[in-house]
Amino acid sequence: MQDKLMLMIPGPTPVAESTLLALAKAPIGHRTPEFSAIFADAIAKLKWLHQTANDVLILAASGTGAMEAGIINFLSKGDRVLVGDNGKFGERWAEVCDAYGLQTERLRAEWGQPLDPEAFRVALEADTAKTIAAVIVTHSETSAGVLNDLETINRHVKKHGRALMMVDAVTSLGATNVPVDAWGLDVVASGSQKAYAIPPGLGFVAVSAKAWAAYQTANLPRYYLDLGKYRKDAAKDTTPFTPAINLIVALQASLTQMQQEGLANIFCPPPTATNATRAAMKALGLGLLADDAHASDAITAVVPPAGLEAEKIRKALQQKFDIAMAGGQDHLKGKVFRMGHLGFVSDRDVLTAIAALEATLQGLAWSFPSGAGSPRQSPT
Amino acid sequence: MQDKLMLMIPGPTPVAESTLLALAKAPIGHRTPEFSAIFADAIAKLKWLHQTANDVLILAASGTGAMEAGIINFLSKGDRVLVGDNGKFGERWAEVCDAYGLQTERLRAEWGQPLDPEAFRVALEADTAKTIAAVIVTHSETSAGVLNDLETINRHVKKHGRALMMVDAVTSLGATNVPVDAWGLDVVASGSQKAYAIPPGLGFVAVSAKAWAAYQTANLPRYYLDLGKYRKDAAKDTTPFTPAINLIVALQASLTQMQQEGLANIFCPPPTATNATRAAMKALGLGLLADDAHASDAITAVVPPAGLEAEKIRKALQQKFDIAMAGGQDHLKGKVFRMGHLGFVSDRDVLTAIAALEATLQGLAWSFPSGAGSPRQSPT
Repeated sequence: MQDKLMLMIPGPTPVAESTLLALAKAPIGHRTPEFSAIFADAIAKLKWLHQTANDVLILAASGTGAMEAGIINFLSKGDRVLVGDNGKFGERWAEVCDAYGLQTERLRAEWGQPLDPEAFRVALEADTAKTIAAVIVTHSETSAGVLNDLETINRHVKKHGRALMMVDAVTSLGATNVPVDAWGLDVVASGSQKAYAIPPGLGFVAVSAKAWAAYQTANLPRYYLDLGKYRKDAAKDTTPFTPAINLIVALQASLTQMQQEGLANIFCPPPTATNATRAAMKALGLGLLADDAHASDAITAVVPPAGLEAEKIRKALQQKFDIAMAGGQDHLKGKVFRMGHLGFVSDRDVLTAIAALEATLQGLAWSFPSGAGSPRQSPT
Repeated sequence: MQDKLMLMIPGPTPVAESTLLALAKAPIGHRTPEFSAIFADAIAKLKWLHQTANDVLILAASGTGAMEAGIINFLSKGDRVLVGDNGKFGERWAEVCDAYGLQTERLRAEWGQPLDPEAFRVALEADTAKTIAAVIVTHSETSAGVLNDLETINRHVKKHGRALMMVDAVTSLGATNVPVDAWGLDVVASGSQKAYAIPPGLGFVAVSAKAWAAYQTANLPRYYLDLGKYRKDAAKDTTPFTPAINLIVALQASLTQMQQEGLANIFCPPPTATNATRAAMKALGLGLLADDAHASDAITAVVPPAGLEAEKIRKALQQKFDIAMAGGQDHLKGKVFRMGHLGFVSDRDVLTAIAALEATLQGLAWSFPSGAGSPRQSPT
């Protein structure tokens, strides 16, 4: 049905009407006190969400642009980096490192499995010469619905002393607790179309004092993604290049709403959307790619058993109920479907999606106890 | 007055209500046939505006990001480049070249003066060893309101044979005739918040076959700004990274409106907004930074004579009439004000701005024949 789309993908996520109306306001000039006030307020709220006193910089770019900026501003050619790779995004950050001539070491796990913190500990402890300049980890691996154990990996990085902890928090920040200062994360990148619940086009990077110290000698070439320029101008409540004005106005609106909800509520306290989704999938006889202990709060990757096809389920959900879920990426294409549950998504949305999935499975002649998904395991 | 702002700055430019409403539509998934159709249509219309069959790629970035991409994808470390520098943006592209270790040669003119095509001819003809890999020119230099003679400079570049012609068309494309294929321009960068009349956040780069040939061996590091990735995915009506969905929907809406108007009408046929603005400024006794022969179609830089202060005029226009004009940049700060007249700006807007300027000058006790600005020199 026209305009009836319900987004249950890992981004873009649904956007509140108030945010859309903020987005639609006629733009104002960006070199004005009025815009500077909005910009400064948005940054203050970003710091609140990041639980940090560090700089949080705003780029007109996707999450990939933000993460690339987070990597290339603090490293030099030939630097040794450890990159966790258990999905499409871990792979991507290793590719970025390769593109810039870093000495890239991949610590791998299968898609659906978490990264092994022990592998990081061993590599970091063996590095007595302190040659490792950075450890790069994707917190919530969107391609597989896995939440990596950032806290433990970061503890090993802290013990190492030299290495910077660089985090892709694109689908964790705002959906999962990421206490940037408490953990001492050096670089944390995220993107607007995820838990921020605004349309895509903005990337965010939080940068620690330790990372800024590394910036002084880092020599990888950059200009548009030069975070030093953003930092310098942010101190004057402005930007080095024309900012994505309307998206920043929308960001301010959405962050205001998030503040009203409060940190404790937006970090999915139990029973979470995640838990409800996972319990329902199990009750419906569907498999889960990630185990419960490493489940992303943003996205659940579902493995239909033999006799059910992921793409058929997705298509039916879309055609009959106007619900969009995501397919699998790369080698998981056709093997999983992925339900997003982050951003402006309420318990009602999760219930709705599960009820529709139940009806869809019935339509595909999949047998399970009727109502298995929704009522018993509903969020309360 | 609240919400009464009238933007007469060189970007962001006013945005049509229909475009703002398109921007505010709830986002759809970007990996869907629905989005691909919008994306493909927007690109077809971009090609129409560029008058080209070349690829035109869309980035989630400001114009600077697009121009940097246009430079770094087609060059290698140590390459020799000529950069025209007669304002803030010419300076910027030279800085980008320096940041990437290119051998940068600046061909300078004063702010307000056009680049001298002869200087380019001499340098290019002297280069019998064909060491010049690219010539970089800002078509409309926004900081000074100067339209550089791209056509003539490009003719010298074509005679050289090897060098790529790279153009910052950020405030010319859509305001001035830029026939990309007829002139054989290799790289043409522009940005959404200018003549496109949508909010900032999108950058565009048109790329010729000759530039793509150079891409094969170009070795400057890049990932988010790697145009080869955008080209590969554009062939499948999609993008390598999450696109700025809502801005692309708005882009499609605005380009649709521009097509209805027609190329001949949007390239300011005489009497143009530019001519009307310039004639009015002269009649009001104000000076112009650029001469008539090299006047930008996007922006007019006005030099108040002794006894008038640029910043006082700007402030009064803003406070009394809610009209925003831009100040001078860098060493022109306080010495000029700049009136934008591109994007969704009609003859009525130009008349309005001039009438308000006239009233403002009267308020500042500046004497001139009453009505000197508007009635005699009005656009017809």
